[in-house]
Amino acid sequence: MPIYQCFSPEGLLDESTRVKLAAEITRIHYDATGIPPSFVNVMFFDLPHGRYFVAGRPSPHSVVNGAIRFGRDLATRQRILRDLSQMWTRVTGQPEEELLVTLWENPAENAMEAGSIFPALSND
Amino acid sequence: MPIYQCFSPEGLLDESTRVKLAAEITRIHYDATGIPPSFVNVMFFDLPHGRYFVAGRPSPHSVVNGAIRFGRDLATRQRILRDLSQMWTRVTGQPEEELLVTLWENPAENAMEAGSIFPALSND
Amino acid sequence: MPIYQCFSPEGLLDESTRVKLAAEITRIHYDATGIPPSFVNVMFFDLPHGRYFVAGRPSPHSVVNGAIRFGRDLATRQRILRDLSQMWTRVTGQPEEELLVTLWENPAENAMEAGSIFPALSND
Repeated sequence: MPIYQCFSPEGLLDESTRVKLAAEITRIHYDATGIPPSFVNVMFFDLPHGRYFVAGRPSPHSVVNGAIRFGRDLATRQRILRDLSQMWTRVTGQPEEELLVTLWENPAENAMEAGSIFPALSND
Repeated sequence: MPIYQCFSPEGLLDESTRVKLAAEITRIHYDATGIPPSFVNVMFFDLPHGRYFVAGRPSPHSVVNGAIRFGRDLATRQRILRDLSQMWTRVTGQPEEELLVTLWENPAENAMEAGSIFPALSND
Repeated sequence: MPIYQCFSPEGLLDESTRVKLAAEITRIHYDATGIPPSFVNVMFFDLPHGRYFVAGRPSPHSVVNGAIRFGRDLATRQRILRDLSQMWTRVTGQPEEELLVTLWENPAENAMEAGSIFPALSND
């Protein structure tokens, strides 16, 4: 953990933009939490036209869902949300109005990485 | 929010069926919660044969996962589940026996849309 | 429920390996919980090169996310995590160092399968 899943319309991102976004997401998570980059996972999914709808109509919106350990304080979580939203717009040119960012908290005891259960946050 | 992700076997849905499902999911969420359609996100993912298994065997089932704000009462959540399940069967012809619908609740403070943190439900 | 979603680099899994993984995931969930195999859902998603990053660099890691009913005791959840992690390595040859397994708990009242709300665990 964390695992960030990015969903965006096919054609919005090219290879070098994905590399830049992955580096920035990793940096933002590190800056907010101190988690070493080697634990930060980022995945990208392209949605072809006609597979994403807002208000029942085809839409070019993007979504970033982050799965993080339970127990970060509100300021940390909202810093991540804000930094991700602003960075995405800066890197991709897509306006923030077309972006939805969510964090999902999971107790560390529900995650195993490299064969070991994840340690809980000390401020749990 | 909300974000509904629909997973179905490749070939089950065509373009016009996806349009109809997106409109119906948006309407069902609005009818149950009063949320304006412009906040309702719907994504579709096709699973090729051999990528979905039930009981360890390839299966033509579909799954709808909805990410919603934490704090809806039980009646509202179960109305959404029931309406989605029945509507899916009506629109696609796929029997309810082959459909799994789940809701996932997330505190509003963990979501940013269009650059703003989502407001909590007043009955939180 | 449960729903297991497996994300792996394109080319790691072939058709027969997916069949074997689906059977093993189903067995592991049954052994730990007693849930009949006909309720165990497994999906596979291939990620092309350049769509998965760790530490900001393209990575061949895999992720297994399991959505389960809320209320399993810690020993049961960690048995599932451990068994999945070791089985994945045995079946695919991918080292555990490249695998992340997480469980996500959802109250039974938030899931409808085959038109019926899922029963809560008796030890809830």
